[in-house]
Amino acid sequence: MSDTFKKLEQVLQHRKQEDPSSSYVASLYNKGLDTILKKIGEEATETVIAAKSGDKKQIIYEMADLWFHSLVLLAQQDLSADDVLKELERRFGLSGLDEKANRTK
Amino acid sequence: MSDTFKKLEQVLQHRKQEDPSSSYVASLYNKGLDTILKKIGEEATETVIAAKSGDKKQIIYEMADLWFHSLVLLAQQDLSADDVLKELERRFGLSGLDEKANRTK
Amino acid sequence: MSDTFKKLEQVLQHRKQEDPSSSYVASLYNKGLDTILKKIGEEATETVIAAKSGDKKQIIYEMADLWFHSLVLLAQQDLSADDVLKELERRFGLSGLDEKANRTK
Amino acid sequence: MSDTFKKLEQVLQHRKQEDPSSSYVASLYNKGLDTILKKIGEEATETVIAAKSGDKKQIIYEMADLWFHSLVLLAQQDLSADDVLKELERRFGLSGLDEKANRTK
Repeated sequence: MSDTFKKLEQVLQHRKQEDPSSSYVASLYNKGLDTILKKIGEEATETVIAAKSGDKKQIIYEMADLWFHSLVLLAQQDLSADDVLKELERRFGLSGLDEKANRTK
Repeated sequence: MSDTFKKLEQVLQHRKQEDPSSSYVASLYNKGLDTILKKIGEEATETVIAAKSGDKKQIIYEMADLWFHSLVLLAQQDLSADDVLKELERRFGLSGLDEKANRTK
Repeated sequence: MSDTFKKLEQVLQHRKQEDPSSSYVASLYNKGLDTILKKIGEEATETVIAAKSGDKKQIIYEMADLWFHSLVLLAQQDLSADDVLKELERRFGLSGLDEKANRTK
Repeated sequence: MSDTFKKLEQVLQHRKQEDPSSSYVASLYNKGLDTILKKIGEEATETVIAAKSGDKKQIIYEMADLWFHSLVLLAQQDLSADDVLKELERRFGLSGLDEKANRTK
């Protein structure tokens, strides 16, 4: 699993116990699920805007925001990045169209 | 960097040369940027819906979709997951609120 | 209230009784809330993409999709466009910044 | 066309000439397209969250925000709500599935 994600998750776990006023992440946990989900929607839109602007540096910046808030959601739900990476591994080796066709949704 | 992401990126690079009809990823590249960005928006919304439904398995599933299409966007833009992970590393150790306050936007 | 919205709402109400296979709207009701919400997220993203492409005709097209699925959501929730227009009326005459400052969120 | 939309559009046109510090809408115009589009993405996500929370009052509130920022986008693009309503009228009477099938995208 990604060392970066692992290190970030340790920070995110640690901040669960902290005072909401002490850090941005602690304040996100305190505000709760809806606030975290709004950030996911917001950062996804900002990634789209950056890509349409053709600004590669901004794409990286917004995608870092998107992945960061993804990790916050996972931590808030007592899930881990590893759960998501394992799901990606599971799909691995399948041709994309086969995989798409196999989806239950 | 994440082994999973590294392996996935190799697959994604490989599929850039493939016929659009041969795989879901090759068809995404062929349809171009707007189609990839629609998927980012779509999977972000589906992640929000899964989280509000309280369905942890579905959160993992939709986030896998979101990260997967993130990697497709990066590959299409000749960027890599490592660029995003390095940006996250760069921010690392900063308290979230400091980091937030330092943003230019 | 908008004549267009009023006429559309009559159609949408009518299709609530129809067989899911008979129309796109009837199939949306049948698939349920999550499917309708996915469309809201999807059409919002497509509106963003159209605007960033500088394609005015496409902006109109995607915003029609967005408003249409908004009306479907309202109908599915037994709400009406008039409820939303009245909320907009209520805010009317307020300076935007005052209105923004008064929000509880 | 909707009286509410017509009245709102007059306000929005008027605020185009105003000082960015004088109102929320004038500040949106001044910040430009990307800021307006971020609001569209944000309010769409908040509508989804409100609907999943089963909070009808909040659905009305967030949809008012979504439609309001839709009108701001139209005004910024020198388009009008009437363009969107006419597009909806044009599609009118078509069965949804026919309409869907006829789409070029």
